[in-house]
Amino acid sequence: MSVLDADRYREFRRDLHRHPEPAWCEFYTTARIVEELRDRELTDLHVGPAALAADERLNVPDEETLDDWLDRARGAGADPDVLDRLEGGYTGCIAVIERGDGPVIGFRVDIDALPILESDDAEHAPAAEGFRSANEGYMHACGHDAHATIGLGVIDSILESDFAGTLKVFFQPSEEQVSGGKPMAESGHLDDVEYLYAVHIGLDHPSGEVVCGIDGFLAVRHFLAAFEGEPAHAGARPEQGRNTVQAMAAAIQNLYAIPRHADGQTRVNAGLVGGGTATNIIPEESFIEGEVRGESTELAEYMSRHADRVLRASAEMHDCTVSIETLGEAPSATSDDALAAIVGDVAGEHDGVTNVVDTAELGGSEDATYLMQAVQDDGGLACYVGVGTDHPGGHHTNTFDVDEADLTLGIDVLAESIRRVADTRP
Amino acid sequence: MSVLDADRYREFRRDLHRHPEPAWCEFYTTARIVEELRDRELTDLHVGPAALAADERLNVPDEETLDDWLDRARGAGADPDVLDRLEGGYTGCIAVIERGDGPVIGFRVDIDALPILESDDAEHAPAAEGFRSANEGYMHACGHDAHATIGLGVIDSILESDFAGTLKVFFQPSEEQVSGGKPMAESGHLDDVEYLYAVHIGLDHPSGEVVCGIDGFLAVRHFLAAFEGEPAHAGARPEQGRNTVQAMAAAIQNLYAIPRHADGQTRVNAGLVGGGTATNIIPEESFIEGEVRGESTELAEYMSRHADRVLRASAEMHDCTVSIETLGEAPSATSDDALAAIVGDVAGEHDGVTNVVDTAELGGSEDATYLMQAVQDDGGLACYVGVGTDHPGGHHTNTFDVDEADLTLGIDVLAESIRRVADTRP
Amino acid sequence: MSVLDADRYREFRRDLHRHPEPAWCEFYTTARIVEELRDRELTDLHVGPAALAADERLNVPDEETLDDWLDRARGAGADPDVLDRLEGGYTGCIAVIERGDGPVIGFRVDIDALPILESDDAEHAPAAEGFRSANEGYMHACGHDAHATIGLGVIDSILESDFAGTLKVFFQPSEEQVSGGKPMAESGHLDDVEYLYAVHIGLDHPSGEVVCGIDGFLAVRHFLAAFEGEPAHAGARPEQGRNTVQAMAAAIQNLYAIPRHADGQTRVNAGLVGGGTATNIIPEESFIEGEVRGESTELAEYMSRHADRVLRASAEMHDCTVSIETLGEAPSATSDDALAAIVGDVAGEHDGVTNVVDTAELGGSEDATYLMQAVQDDGGLACYVGVGTDHPGGHHTNTFDVDEADLTLGIDVLAESIRRVADTRP
Amino acid sequence: MSVLDADRYREFRRDLHRHPEPAWCEFYTTARIVEELRDRELTDLHVGPAALAADERLNVPDEETLDDWLDRARGAGADPDVLDRLEGGYTGCIAVIERGDGPVIGFRVDIDALPILESDDAEHAPAAEGFRSANEGYMHACGHDAHATIGLGVIDSILESDFAGTLKVFFQPSEEQVSGGKPMAESGHLDDVEYLYAVHIGLDHPSGEVVCGIDGFLAVRHFLAAFEGEPAHAGARPEQGRNTVQAMAAAIQNLYAIPRHADGQTRVNAGLVGGGTATNIIPEESFIEGEVRGESTELAEYMSRHADRVLRASAEMHDCTVSIETLGEAPSATSDDALAAIVGDVAGEHDGVTNVVDTAELGGSEDATYLMQAVQDDGGLACYVGVGTDHPGGHHTNTFDVDEADLTLGIDVLAESIRRVADTRP
Repeated sequence: MSVLDADRYREFRRDLHRHPEPAWCEFYTTARIVEELRDRELTDLHVGPAALAADERLNVPDEETLDDWLDRARGAGADPDVLDRLEGGYTGCIAVIERGDGPVIGFRVDIDALPILESDDAEHAPAAEGFRSANEGYMHACGHDAHATIGLGVIDSILESDFAGTLKVFFQPSEEQVSGGKPMAESGHLDDVEYLYAVHIGLDHPSGEVVCGIDGFLAVRHFLAAFEGEPAHAGARPEQGRNTVQAMAAAIQNLYAIPRHADGQTRVNAGLVGGGTATNIIPEESFIEGEVRGESTELAEYMSRHADRVLRASAEMHDCTVSIETLGEAPSATSDDALAAIVGDVAGEHDGVTNVVDTAELGGSEDATYLMQAVQDDGGLACYVGVGTDHPGGHHTNTFDVDEADLTLGIDVLAESIRRVADTRP
Repeated sequence: MSVLDADRYREFRRDLHRHPEPAWCEFYTTARIVEELRDRELTDLHVGPAALAADERLNVPDEETLDDWLDRARGAGADPDVLDRLEGGYTGCIAVIERGDGPVIGFRVDIDALPILESDDAEHAPAAEGFRSANEGYMHACGHDAHATIGLGVIDSILESDFAGTLKVFFQPSEEQVSGGKPMAESGHLDDVEYLYAVHIGLDHPSGEVVCGIDGFLAVRHFLAAFEGEPAHAGARPEQGRNTVQAMAAAIQNLYAIPRHADGQTRVNAGLVGGGTATNIIPEESFIEGEVRGESTELAEYMSRHADRVLRASAEMHDCTVSIETLGEAPSATSDDALAAIVGDVAGEHDGVTNVVDTAELGGSEDATYLMQAVQDDGGLACYVGVGTDHPGGHHTNTFDVDEADLTLGIDVLAESIRRVADTRP
Repeated sequence: MSVLDADRYREFRRDLHRHPEPAWCEFYTTARIVEELRDRELTDLHVGPAALAADERLNVPDEETLDDWLDRARGAGADPDVLDRLEGGYTGCIAVIERGDGPVIGFRVDIDALPILESDDAEHAPAAEGFRSANEGYMHACGHDAHATIGLGVIDSILESDFAGTLKVFFQPSEEQVSGGKPMAESGHLDDVEYLYAVHIGLDHPSGEVVCGIDGFLAVRHFLAAFEGEPAHAGARPEQGRNTVQAMAAAIQNLYAIPRHADGQTRVNAGLVGGGTATNIIPEESFIEGEVRGESTELAEYMSRHADRVLRASAEMHDCTVSIETLGEAPSATSDDALAAIVGDVAGEHDGVTNVVDTAELGGSEDATYLMQAVQDDGGLACYVGVGTDHPGGHHTNTFDVDEADLTLGIDVLAESIRRVADTRP
Repeated sequence: MSVLDADRYREFRRDLHRHPEPAWCEFYTTARIVEELRDRELTDLHVGPAALAADERLNVPDEETLDDWLDRARGAGADPDVLDRLEGGYTGCIAVIERGDGPVIGFRVDIDALPILESDDAEHAPAAEGFRSANEGYMHACGHDAHATIGLGVIDSILESDFAGTLKVFFQPSEEQVSGGKPMAESGHLDDVEYLYAVHIGLDHPSGEVVCGIDGFLAVRHFLAAFEGEPAHAGARPEQGRNTVQAMAAAIQNLYAIPRHADGQTRVNAGLVGGGTATNIIPEESFIEGEVRGESTELAEYMSRHADRVLRASAEMHDCTVSIETLGEAPSATSDDALAAIVGDVAGEHDGVTNVVDTAELGGSEDATYLMQAVQDDGGLACYVGVGTDHPGGHHTNTFDVDEADLTLGIDVLAESIRRVADTRP
């Protein structure tokens, strides 16, 4: 059904796959997207700081890390002029196409990668075919390389179509640490969007399957609790210490013990913890990097309130102090049936689609929900679409990969759905 | 060596042994002491409220309990006029003998019993000889019946002697819960005391052994922490509860984990705890009855400060409140060598004494230390004397008993030591 | 619509209300039911031991308690011959009516009361009209007096009808501690039952409302964990103790921290805990009376496995032992639509019914699920019906009461539904 | 008083100071000592494997680390032939002087450094005078460079004297992690030693002060507990994880809560802990690097037994496993008065000594105790001597330094004490 040049999108996806970058360091990725889009007839292209509410960015790496990734991007051949505009970790961009009188429609894709060492097994296609990650220790293990490519393809497809309306494609940074959705949602560019689609590839759905409207987003908050106490010699003067490892342990025990909630599922995890310096020193510093989640935004807030109380009381209990920083967060959201129904119609008509699923549960978190919720709060509609693909390894594993044939299928379904929304204003 | 009427003291001790009374309920005991002392030529006899700083009394039982013990005392034949003066739990008394120009010397004995069910085994002398506790569930299992008797005997002995000075004998209530020492120490009657002896029988020292000056008193604080939260149905609405059992558990774990102190031994115990009402209700109320101790008063205070912080933070952690009440406390103290030396001299000359020990460690707590410390703080001297006795069962066990022959030995040694202190003003 | 003698049922219900009895002590209650049923033309009446799988009874009170309640029942005028058959806590009975060729249908009601002190407020009808609990501290605060009455009424109604089939009415003891369902389910009498109804009154549904099929039963297990250690003097020899309060606290903290489960809601509560004897003794004995629940039987079993591990490891951690006893348990269950539909039809036709609700969530636990599950496992159908009633106080509060007008409505709806099941074999 | 060439010892000490090496990596240090000793007329010189019970070495770094330090030693100019003999981390050596019929006397010094970044402040003499650490991040911050120098000087002094007997000087590796004492104590070379001295410089005693016999060594055990569980997605499948961070937190809380012991001081510290990988992953691996101590060897063993139980039960509680490795340990020990008295005599006669202290408490741990205990267990005598020095920064801080004038004082006092022991066989 597609008239797209599949080879070109495959090449683009492989280029991104070879250069995975973590949150707020998507310099090469953003630059490559911008380079491609410069050749298209866009109405507007907002890059970096112009695409974000800068103050809403969370958990931006330190300058040294940012510079290091900027250097890598330069070394990999990204356009230096574009890179200059991204300096400071202002990554991502928004492409705008205005065509006549129709509604304003948004399409959101994410572009960041994960801190995972990619497999070099001969069975792993990127290794076998030469596009394995060149940034050792980082990997596109969740398909955001494919998402960015679909974003590009949808723009191409819309430009070639009789689309009447405005399309804004949000190439969003920092989804993996759920801290890019909010700055983009509050950038101002979403304010006039009436309909919003977002897309995810894979999610354990096979090639040929389309999920019209995904639900079950767990609202989430990532936090970093840093405890400070006082060191002392553990043998000679144990009473002079203020022991942050004891505070941290009390916090961990009681975080997991936050009461369950009758309104729905909640989650809590102290996923990365550490403290102290040596066996014979009362530990002066400790930290918990953790998260809370809830089936609804309210439930996540319930967990968050309790977690803060537990953290503060644990510090107080051992005469320490604690500072709590939010590293990322995302609300829950629901896909609107009207938009999902259009996807269902489109998918049903596509030759490559063998199975149409009305809805499925994500069971995880995603900060596309920030954009979805913002649109819905203004009276608009939003929908999160799943495009199946056979992926040999699971998401977030070192053998994850996508079937590249599904790229054009995804482009087709999303672009056509967007066109119909413009036509029908559901 | 003694010229005392041993039978008379034995009878008195057995009378008290038959009527053991717990802290602040020593109505019969006080009345019997007062009845005996009325016949002596005392300069003064301060009874009940007149012998105590009333506001310093801690952990006084509720009115119903007090009335119940007052009724028992009445039923057992105690003088109703004396009992009337003790109403409200103002037990204990202070006997004063003024004789010429010498120094003011104090002698402190304690008079309360324990909540222990006395053995009715035929091997247990009180059971065999008919003076087993008539108050079921209570027992003189630490020899305070003997102490009160020695107090009486010392008065007799001094009255018959050429003693020149002032002797004040403090019959102190509520030692077992360490809450009687402070009210007596702050009654005003101790203010002019220059030398103070206190005595304990047994302590695993055999008959014939005298310990001249006991040290190693652990300073102690008993506390009651009462947690209040909010109940909720544990199945239907767990999040609506504020769970005091969780607060209590966090407190227990962290109480025992208060850092050890390089300056000396510390102790902590959550000895009696409870909470909740039913399996399916989030527990609204919980409590910890516990104690902290230290080798020095400072160490006990260190533990106490930390315990309070742990209790408060645990409550806060689970959104509960906690009230902390001090049930009893006693400082540490040290026996002065000069007074101990006199006891050593006296004991060495006594026929019945087979072994003189300079010093020994108590390894527990005692609120005689309040009186000792008060005298020492004013520049006086204090000394805690041990009078050995063969006791078949250990202290605080249901077969504890004393060898009554040691009563007159104790009276002799203490009375003679007091006379020599008056003579020599060490 | 009803032709029943409402007065008679009201009198019977009030008699039971006046004599509330806790689990396994329903001597008066069972005897009164048996006395009534003796006058009916039943095919069979299984009483006490004959109605239960005796070995499956859990949490039966000690002999002294059983004897005490047996005496009360005698004193209240229950038939001594019946009482003799119930001795040892074998309470409850099963009434059987065989009439021709139809299917075997079960109807389950529960009969026990709660340890709640009933209100004596003049606003509280039982107090005002003279049928307040005569067993102080116990109360029919969940309507089981009404359930037993409906059981009786359904028998009457069926006997008067053209019912063709077999009806077995299970008057089940010990629902409140979820330990009566299993012994009755495994008594053998349920083996041939093809259809089963159970009923509950109230549940916050008003008079005139009928809930055709209730779901959302949380599977549950009540447990008692008893820790044993070693006492020691907390000041003199803390290291010689094996501290059960520390074990208990570690268990509590980690019980609440059992990981949440993605398959559905779980619950855990340490609802009643205690330990120790005195502030200065390392606590030798402690206990946790608690519960775990799950949205499904599997989830409750998941929680139960983890709870057992936490309890055992906590004991081991402090060199103590723990014995874990199951006090009661119940699986989850689901009402079958086919039976609920019949209730819906019948209720829709009844004059007294103003609102028919297809389904509602219980949000708590019930051991009727044991009987439901047993029937369903054998290929039968089961359904839990709610009969609304205006109840001034909430369930399990001291002012709970039912509108007695709803008794006959309940009897009508259940009896007619049973008849139609016999007719239609859905 | 000394006739030693102070400059030479200062140079040697500065050479070692410039090349600090951690435990089991003292390649340069050992080689330099061996190079020096080769020129002396020793009876024997046991190097590396010949000086150690190889199997008793604990916490030896991995091969890569060893090789790295070996390379550094080569690069710094150490004799390659000696280095070859040390390969595999067999560092340290034992020098033997046999002279006639006298007793066998041991002298133990330690030679390793600490992982501390040395100050480059101009006030810090090593920085100002050009012998600051060339191994960045490592530093002789506890004076072991001085100890090795004193060892060398004592050999020189004895060689020049009329000493009659056998002297063995133990240059012991890996004291800082208390894992070098045992392998040297069990090497066989200590078996015939009748008298043993060990020395420490500084310890907050000023220049001119000598402590004749130090006591108060806390027995110690360092351990590494490594927990293994199972990862899982914290949002999607929390129940599938086996959470090592929960296990670790339970262990920490209960380690600090090991009961205090009436026989003396105990210590416990979880000094360095960590676990997990990311906020959204149930943590699969965690660790605690910690220590326990006791005033006596028995008390440390008591703590160690309890710590092991707590660690194992915590793992079990969360369905994880734990492996516990001992990283180092040392018993307690006491200095013998007879040897201390000789030091007192010698020091009293030395011009440079302004203050002689009979005894002082170390209040920390030291594995010289392994050698002391071994000698004492065989009926010999042992003594740990303190040589004061003005040290600007505290021990284990980055500005620690010694007054080099005290080197010869230390050599004088120790060598003369050894001579007198040989003469007097105390």
